[in-house]
Amino acid sequence: MSAYDIIIIGGGPAGIQAALSARNTNQDKSIALVRMEKVALIPCGIPYILHSLSSVDDDIVPDALLDKNNIELLLGEVTGRDGKTLLFSDGQKVGFEKLVLATGSAPIKPSIPGIDMPGVYLLPKDYQYLQDLRDAAVRANRVLIVGGGYVGVELADELLKAGKKVTVVEMLPSLLPTSVDPEFGDAIREQLKQQGGEVLTEVGVESFSGKAVVTGANLSDGRRLETDFVIVSVGYRPSLSLAKTMGLDVDDKFGVHVDEYLRTSDPDVFAAGDCAAKRSCYTGEYRQIMLASTAMAQGRLAGSNLFEINVVKTFAGTLGTFSTKVGNVALGVTGLTETRAKRIGLSYVVGYAEGVDRHPGKLPNASPVKIKLIFARYTHHLLGAQMLGGDSVGECTNMLSVMIQQKMTDMEIDTLQIGTHPLLTPSPLAYTVINATVNAIMKWYR
Amino acid sequence: MSAYDIIIIGGGPAGIQAALSARNTNQDKSIALVRMEKVALIPCGIPYILHSLSSVDDDIVPDALLDKNNIELLLGEVTGRDGKTLLFSDGQKVGFEKLVLATGSAPIKPSIPGIDMPGVYLLPKDYQYLQDLRDAAVRANRVLIVGGGYVGVELADELLKAGKKVTVVEMLPSLLPTSVDPEFGDAIREQLKQQGGEVLTEVGVESFSGKAVVTGANLSDGRRLETDFVIVSVGYRPSLSLAKTMGLDVDDKFGVHVDEYLRTSDPDVFAAGDCAAKRSCYTGEYRQIMLASTAMAQGRLAGSNLFEINVVKTFAGTLGTFSTKVGNVALGVTGLTETRAKRIGLSYVVGYAEGVDRHPGKLPNASPVKIKLIFARYTHHLLGAQMLGGDSVGECTNMLSVMIQQKMTDMEIDTLQIGTHPLLTPSPLAYTVINATVNAIMKWYR
Repeated sequence: MSAYDIIIIGGGPAGIQAALSARNTNQDKSIALVRMEKVALIPCGIPYILHSLSSVDDDIVPDALLDKNNIELLLGEVTGRDGKTLLFSDGQKVGFEKLVLATGSAPIKPSIPGIDMPGVYLLPKDYQYLQDLRDAAVRANRVLIVGGGYVGVELADELLKAGKKVTVVEMLPSLLPTSVDPEFGDAIREQLKQQGGEVLTEVGVESFSGKAVVTGANLSDGRRLETDFVIVSVGYRPSLSLAKTMGLDVDDKFGVHVDEYLRTSDPDVFAAGDCAAKRSCYTGEYRQIMLASTAMAQGRLAGSNLFEINVVKTFAGTLGTFSTKVGNVALGVTGLTETRAKRIGLSYVVGYAEGVDRHPGKLPNASPVKIKLIFARYTHHLLGAQMLGGDSVGECTNMLSVMIQQKMTDMEIDTLQIGTHPLLTPSPLAYTVINATVNAIMKWYR
Repeated sequence: MSAYDIIIIGGGPAGIQAALSARNTNQDKSIALVRMEKVALIPCGIPYILHSLSSVDDDIVPDALLDKNNIELLLGEVTGRDGKTLLFSDGQKVGFEKLVLATGSAPIKPSIPGIDMPGVYLLPKDYQYLQDLRDAAVRANRVLIVGGGYVGVELADELLKAGKKVTVVEMLPSLLPTSVDPEFGDAIREQLKQQGGEVLTEVGVESFSGKAVVTGANLSDGRRLETDFVIVSVGYRPSLSLAKTMGLDVDDKFGVHVDEYLRTSDPDVFAAGDCAAKRSCYTGEYRQIMLASTAMAQGRLAGSNLFEINVVKTFAGTLGTFSTKVGNVALGVTGLTETRAKRIGLSYVVGYAEGVDRHPGKLPNASPVKIKLIFARYTHHLLGAQMLGGDSVGECTNMLSVMIQQKMTDMEIDTLQIGTHPLLTPSPLAYTVINATVNAIMKWYR
């Protein structure tokens, strides 16, 4: 029987990162990464196979990353374990000292009549399925996207850019309803509309209709939409069957129970990424946050801390930092939204600012910027930020995320030394992050 | 005699920001801003009047900002004071309670024979002068830029984009020699070359030649360059004549002596921006840092703290955070370079990473990224960062600047939660800031 000191199950971002970090902290251990798929996809790149990328093959993580770090790649399906021996579906047995589960997540398939009809797709991280989906998308004319979350709006944006007629259906009152405040969701709706997209909110799909293939969708408000191509994107569920078979403590909705160092109920087994339950950094309650960047941060912690805690956490819980781009507008979010601050009963002050991300604003490629910051009313710490603007929103959101993780207060942000340049940032006199902070300070001061 | 509670002298970023911050913290005080110029230019936008902007008028700070905040604008020249009364060149006298000097800086005019010849320009922040310079630049064919600092390379980049034949002459061995390490200066040289520019280093201009107008420059290595348009950009000096007349303590090279709250030797007089001396946050020694963003940070502190300290500083000294763009490449710098770490005798470890700022890298607009971090060898704090890449380098540099100001260590950066998106940032598995940090950590770990 073969055996490795460290085995990682799962070839997504959490798994790869866990393997790389395990190698960094364990030069002399043998490490294997097990996955079922022949190729590892870049999960957040999947919407972009529809138009921006020319094939699914452009969205693959190179296995060279593993080779270079002396991590063995085993293709196969683990079905269970016997103590410290993994059992594979082909009868193979492989021993381990430490194990990391990074089994990821799978799309939720709602029980809508007709959902199994040809022409109706989910969005699993499956190379062959996505090849077929891409081919069908190229042929499609009238596209229906069910679900107005991040993935849904990114799919809609791509298909609009590809010249399709696109409708997005979302059950809640605004787009990205669980991620951003309504005014930011409305800005994204506007971007889809400007490209000719149709957005229907507070409405669901009751059934799909058609004979050999899908030709329509019946909505909860009685309307019927014609369509020849549907993607249902209403969220993902952690993939937990292996964790359950292994006897680990699991929450069916949120994932494998883990501590701050990603240790499961078995001290030799870690879990990271979409399959691991995540806690809010504000309340400690479980939150369904499935982001490659979060998975990577967890994979890094799990991989570094397998035999002893090498990397001590300084910020508890999951912040949830993400960005996207729809039409000409980039959107970034980190930490608490106002909607969520209200829901958890948190006393807050909001700071707003608007501006432009070049100076003077007449320079080419200038984009308007809009920012909203949430501060704790009594302790004055930055708790959350939402931002619309040009492409630099991605890194600006990361700066705001650093500020939250560093527990920076309004006054600390106010006195920051930042750099500005005409072609790259807002003006020093109108740097939007600081202006929004001053806007909040003035609400206390006056 | 008219009088104001607060008077600010100078209409640049430091002056405007001081006025706005004074208004924020002093709702009921009368505030006036005095300047000599009819219009206030955006200083860092000046190079871009040559090509990217269609006129000097596109580079003006709107006075509406002052009006809106009930700040009176006085056009005139202050020549001295009599106690708490300012004396104007037209005989006017105006009283003040608190005064902020933000008199800025003026270009250094080296004593090169022929420098006063028509066709040879400096780069003062003077509207009419810049109108003339722009007209001459439009007519020019063979351009010579003397000085390869930030302003010099930005001027060269603009004039290359405008289709001119451009030569840059720099006395030191690489471009941006006082700002970045040579490998980063060389990357900027490469960008100028790719656009057809010529860069000569370790060579100076001995004299300019020509009859009615400049037609050539004689270099220290014996060569002669033909040229019909020259901009000499070898740095700026603080404008100190008023401060000296007022009897304030002044360092001729670095500026008005100020404490951490921008107070001069007279407790009722503050100084901010290019005219105020700045200390290194690492050694406390004076450093010549003239950046609009630094000026703004100082203006904010001065304006907020005139009558009492409202905004307490949490980070001493000036960090120096700046970014620019030349050709297709953006460059960002914050804190210590390796060159400077060596010069001040600091024990350091370097972390490197390269990557691409989109994921997968085949997405449109992907730019290669190169990053170099300097950590303190024993305390593990981040001390400096240099970065090349796409436009998001501007905000990524600000994130790195926040990390330095927050005194973050390698391990804190390693465990950060950052957000990534295919269209906006590097991949979560190859986020360059974290990869460069891990690269440094591995040097300690192994």
